[in-house]
Amino acid sequence: MSIFTKIINGEIPSYKIKEDEHFIAFLDVFPLVEGHVLVVPKIEVDKMFDLPTYYLQQILVFAQPIATAIEKTMPCKRCGISVIGLEVPHAHMHLVPITTANDLNFTQPKIQVAPERMKAIQELIVANL
Amino acid sequence: MSIFTKIINGEIPSYKIKEDEHFIAFLDVFPLVEGHVLVVPKIEVDKMFDLPTYYLQQILVFAQPIATAIEKTMPCKRCGISVIGLEVPHAHMHLVPITTANDLNFTQPKIQVAPERMKAIQELIVANL
Repeated sequence: MSIFTKIINGEIPSYKIKEDEHFIAFLDVFPLVEGHVLVVPKIEVDKMFDLPTYYLQQILVFAQPIATAIEKTMPCKRCGISVIGLEVPHAHMHLVPITTANDLNFTQPKIQVAPERMKAIQELIVANL
Repeated sequence: MSIFTKIINGEIPSYKIKEDEHFIAFLDVFPLVEGHVLVVPKIEVDKMFDLPTYYLQQILVFAQPIATAIEKTMPCKRCGISVIGLEVPHAHMHLVPITTANDLNFTQPKIQVAPERMKAIQELIVANL
């Protein structure tokens, strides 16, 4: 069972942003920048492009209001998207508030964000949804 | 008129991979790695998440067979996705064959690929569609 399935099942807590029958979104606990969100389908498929067509059709529609809320909440030029997937074998999409292309550079060290700040960011993004 | 609209209109040539009524895909002429493809909606909207819902629903469905063909054609672990959009104000999605996260690092210098090699890569990917 992937770490994301454990989050979906509530076995591991998360800073949840949005959830429906097919997807969940929560703050990445290893963020590139503050406000970095993961969007995860609720089925455990390794590669994004191996997801059933319904998920490919709906993931950006599910992500759209989150991206808009991130842009309202965090200082940035826009919300970028990245799908890499070399670490956790459960398809996921990164939504990252970016000012430069380096804000989507996954070779950078991740930043440390204190739990109370993560909670505050979660609440601000959810309030802007 | 964006450079991508000029490509869509045939005013600028491209190494085309796939096209339908709503999207076009072609080799990025400033690639991060060989086999780097751009997927572009045929309407000139700056930000991906400002596209009409139909485009958000269909862009990954349009991209799916291309990503599979890229994975078949190029040496890589999988096809990654990136949407940044800080340079050309016409929404576009990068499909990049990746082996490490650095293959999706847009702060790297782009590689040079000779026209005959671009043509060969185009033909190989199209043959695997």
